[in-house]
This record gives sequence, structure tokens and C-alpha cells, in this order.
Amino acid sequence: MRTIDAVDTVSFDGTEVTMLDQTRLPGERVRLTIQDTAQMHEAIRTLRVRGAPAIGVAAAFGLWLGVRALPDDTPRAEAETQLRREQAYLAGARPTAVNLTWALERCAAEALQTPGSTADLKRAALEAAIRLRSDEEATTRRIGEHGAALLAGLQGVLTHCNAGSAATVGLGTALAPIYVAAERGHVLHVFADETRPLLQGARITAWELQEAGVPVTVITDSMAAVVMRQGKVGAVIVGCDRVAANGDVANKIGTYGVALLARAHGLPFYVAGPTSTIDLATPDGDHIEIEQRAAQEVTHHGGVAMAPAGVDVFNPAFDVTPAELVTALITERGVIYPPYTQGLRDVKA
Amino acid sequence: MRTIDAVDTVSFDGTEVTMLDQTRLPGERVRLTIQDTAQMHEAIRTLRVRGAPAIGVAAAFGLWLGVRALPDDTPRAEAETQLRREQAYLAGARPTAVNLTWALERCAAEALQTPGSTADLKRAALEAAIRLRSDEEATTRRIGEHGAALLAGLQGVLTHCNAGSAATVGLGTALAPIYVAAERGHVLHVFADETRPLLQGARITAWELQEAGVPVTVITDSMAAVVMRQGKVGAVIVGCDRVAANGDVANKIGTYGVALLARAHGLPFYVAGPTSTIDLATPDGDHIEIEQRAAQEVTHHGGVAMAPAGVDVFNPAFDVTPAELVTALITERGVIYPPYTQGLRDVKA
Repeated sequence: MRTIDAVDTVSFDGTEVTMLDQTRLPGERVRLTIQDTAQMHEAIRTLRVRGAPAIGVAAAFGLWLGVRALPDDTPRAEAETQLRREQAYLAGARPTAVNLTWALERCAAEALQTPGSTADLKRAALEAAIRLRSDEEATTRRIGEHGAALLAGLQGVLTHCNAGSAATVGLGTALAPIYVAAERGHVLHVFADETRPLLQGARITAWELQEAGVPVTVITDSMAAVVMRQGKVGAVIVGCDRVAANGDVANKIGTYGVALLARAHGLPFYVAGPTSTIDLATPDGDHIEIEQRAAQEVTHHGGVAMAPAGVDVFNPAFDVTPAELVTALITERGVIYPPYTQGLRDVKA
Repeated sequence: MRTIDAVDTVSFDGTEVTMLDQTRLPGERVRLTIQDTAQMHEAIRTLRVRGAPAIGVAAAFGLWLGVRALPDDTPRAEAETQLRREQAYLAGARPTAVNLTWALERCAAEALQTPGSTADLKRAALEAAIRLRSDEEATTRRIGEHGAALLAGLQGVLTHCNAGSAATVGLGTALAPIYVAAERGHVLHVFADETRPLLQGARITAWELQEAGVPVTVITDSMAAVVMRQGKVGAVIVGCDRVAANGDVANKIGTYGVALLARAHGLPFYVAGPTSTIDLATPDGDHIEIEQRAAQEVTHHGGVAMAPAGVDVFNPAFDVTPAELVTALITERGVIYPPYTQGLRDVKA
């Protein structure tokens, strides 16, 4: 049986926190050493690390970096205040993904619950980040195992953005079922929406699938409907940045349209993500803050202006897919079917 | 009343055929002088001139350029053979738009029907191209007048690709109703899909609307669904490259998806084009040849590779929107509603 090697998005080498700079993919593989929370904040904000689960792990290490430099004889109360301040700072790097705040709160709580000196607090913050990373890695494999069963018998699937290994630590969310299927000898052909404006599909999904030996065809986002109509795919599978209590899903801009197209062609539309992405405190999609990003992401290509100067641009980074368009949610704790209000409450219990 | 100035896509200055190089928009306005059919073929193939009606006019002038250099004492039969050879050559520049073959056949027939010497044939070929240009210009204004009535009361519309002034000689097809409405004091807000891979929406539609003082917002193709859901637009209006006898519409890749999204949001989906775009010899969309273009259009941005080397790409330049998704066809002879089989036959009669 083959084994898929995960992309090493964020890791701790025993001394330093290092990350793959995903803005340089696929042309270059640059590994960054992140020294402090300001660098981590910048890396998250500028998408050097992206994908809700990977952002969560990165922020967790960022939290530790925020207290690492404190002298061990710093009063514990002062260190705790600093930890909370760094937590709030990092949580503001991107607004939509709930994993970010979830991961930060989990690690901050673990550190704060650890008794002892500031040195103990610092060690606990690091251990919390390492434990989170390890748990998240296991989570992706379980998502893959639950999801692979849903893809049985299919020849092709369509995905949007990158919810792969590069978006997590481990096998990914949406791509995890594809990787697990491949490990078991069921090789699917993936149609990857390039995913404008930042092209995570063309740059990252295509790259990581190619590295893993999974056949992939890149299409522009506008070709998804034709690919479906021609019967090239039997399902759509995407990741998620936040799932509201009613099953509404915030994910990369364009996901909502793809869900409508899947419905129009009678194709199942699967959303994969860890249960940490489910936010029961958000009643529905209308309550999810949607990050608006710079116009230049849309107007410039490779540094060249491709739209007239000063033109108005609408650039939401995410959209909301209503629960009624979602065939099933694939989590590490199993597959959730409608009605989601009950299913999501149960899986989070 | 304000008057919208049309983009001068293709014209004859009394001596030479000149064209706006649309591959340089919006950054530069470069006017090309086209000397022979090889240059015209290249200009059409590489989209320096694009948009079905503009291509037709460009090819018509190309036909004249193909015989212009013949000495006046060339035997007429020889000149006629050359004209037909150049006609076939130019018709092969792009396969999907039917205006190209229609315009070439109209002008070739007019030239061949003109009696006299080779000098007479050459003059007739030029006059045919000039007459076509003038007729096509009038056609766009009539499309605009018929279409403006459909847009009454709307605040915003969404369009895909560029079916504007730059795609025609005159006011455009899909944008003509918007321009005519603006001339009458009804200013619509246009949401322009950027239209990957070649970005005719961002580069050309946004530019020409901005020049004309019509408010425009550029979005990625993947944002159309959200724009519709948020109620920002009350209709979709697009152009067409070929309309089959049953009303199926070939147009820029992505149009089919936009039509499905319009249907899902209960929005009318209008297709505008001259009757020369209606091809009764093509029974339905399955019989329309779809041009496949180079992978590099998708993988490279501003010369920079944005996908891993060697990755598989699917790059059809057009798709087919089934007639049942089309609310109405707007032509220079009036608005056609379903059932299209009869309506299209009538309008072509």
C-alpha cells in the first residue's frame, strides 16, 4: 500500500518554528523561520500559511513565540497577561476561520492551567502547540477515512481552493478522502478550480496532488459547470472555514456558486473539516463575518494591472453556502447528514 | 441627452485598415495597421481583435487586403480564386463564432457578383467591407434600443466577458442596451465578471464602461453567485458567438455557469447578438465546435507560471448554454422569446 507524504506546512524542529511559504508555490519552496508573533501575524495575514486548520496550528506556535523571549524570572501574572495579549493579537490576523480562535483558546487555556513559574507557562504553551499539531494530523486522517467511503465508485471529483495537505498539518480536509482512497488503490481524477483571486487551486492543490501522484486537471473557476455537465466528476468536495450551527458553511469565495452548480447537475456536494471548524455559537451564515480583501488581488496579475486604474472591485475572501445545498459534512468523528442542527450539536457534544 | 462614443475597434482610414490591439488593454492603446491577410489572421487568432461582430468586420477587411496587392491587369478568374482562398484562410482563424464565416461569405459574394475587371473586384471587396461595418454599427444601436426596454427599472446587471463596444463596431451587443439606457438617463451599475482566462471583463468591459461613465464593479467569476444572492443585480446580460436553431447559445466559457446561477436566483438571463450570429444550419449546441486553447492561458499570469510545470489543463474557450436557461434573445430585429425554434426561424426569414 502506498502512503501519501503530507506537506510540512508548520512544524517545530526542536528549536525553531518553521513554515512553508505558500505564497511562493509552486515555483519555489521557501521555508520560513518564524521568530515572533509579529512575524506569525504577518504570515497568516498575507497567506504564507493558509487553510483554516493550518492557520490554527501556526497561531498556536505563534502564541508560544509571544512568551518565549520572556525571562524565566518574569512574574507569572505578567507572563499570563502577555499570553492573553498575544492571543488576542493573533486572533485578529484573519476574521473568518474559527479554527484560529479555537486553536488559540485551546492552547492558551492549557498553558494557563499549567501551574508553576513563567518558565513552566512557556513550556506548557509550546507543549500545547505540539499536541495540537499532533491531534490535528490525526484528525485529517480520520476525515480521510470517513470521506473515502463516500467517494467509492467515483472516477472524478471537483474541488475548489486548497483544502489539502497544504491547508492543514496532515492529509488535508477535502483532499484527505482522495489521498486515503489513493492509498487504498482507488485513484480519483481531481478537477481543481484555479480559485481566483489568489489561485490556491492552481498553485497549491495542483502542486500537492501532482507531488502525491494523484491525477489532476486545472480549470478556471468558470469551467466547473461544463466539467459537471460533461460528466467528468461524480461529486464536489470542499473544505470549510466555519460551519454555523444550522449547517451553513463559510468557505473560499466561489464555493457557494460551485454548490449551486452541483445541485443543478444532481451531484453530491460534500464539505470536509475538523469539528473545530463547527461553531455552535454562530447561529447561521448571516452571522459569519466575511473578510474583504484588497482590490489589487483581483486587478493585478504577476504585478501587472489587468483592469483599468481606479476601477471599483468587490473582493470578499469567502462566501456562505446555505446548509440546504450541503449533501453531507465529513468530520473526524464521522459523516453528518441533514438535519444539521441536531447532527452538529451531537458531534460537538 | 448624452451620447456614448463607441470604441473604434476596426476601421478604414481611407488608405489603411487599422485596429485597436485589445491584448494591450487597459494599459496601452496601440493602434495596429493591418497590411495583409496573414496579419489579419494572426490578429484574429491571438485576440487582438475579438468579439464575434468585430471579428466579422475585421475579416471582411482582411478579405480585401487579400486581393489589394493584385495588379489590376490580373485575370479576373485568377483574382476570384485568390479571393476564395483568402476567404477560407481567414474563416479558419477561429472556429466558434459564426459571424466570421457569415461576414466573409457576405462580402465575398458581393465582390464576386460585381462585374468587371480585377480592379472592379478589388474595389467591390473594399466597398463590401465598408458597408458591412456600417450595417453592423447600426445593428448594435438597434440591439441597444430593443434591450434597453428589458432593463427598465433595474439598478444593476451582471455581464460576463466583453460583449461591448470593443467586441463590435458600434455600441456592442450585451452592453448596447446599457449604453442606450444611459443615453436616456437610466444609469445601471454593471458587475463585470473578470472572465478568466483572458480577462476580457476586467481588461475590456471595465475599461470601456469606465470610459463611457457607466459605473462598473469588477468581480472574479467566482463571485457572481454572491452578487446575485445579495440582490446587487436584477438581470444577467451576455453576448453570443453562435446561436443554434433550437436556441442553444455558444458564448465565452463561463456563460453556462452564470446562466445556471441566474436561474437559481430567479434572475432573467438575456443573450444579445445580431441575427448574423443565429445559425439555423446548426441544429443545437452539441453541433457547435468548441475551440480549445493553449494551457498557458490558464497556467501563466503576466508571464509567471501560477501552476506546477506540466500540469494537465482543460481550456475550452466557449461553452453552450441550453436554450431553456435563456429568458430572451435580443437582436436588431427585436426580442425573441421561447419557443426559440420558431422565433429564430421567423427572425431570419
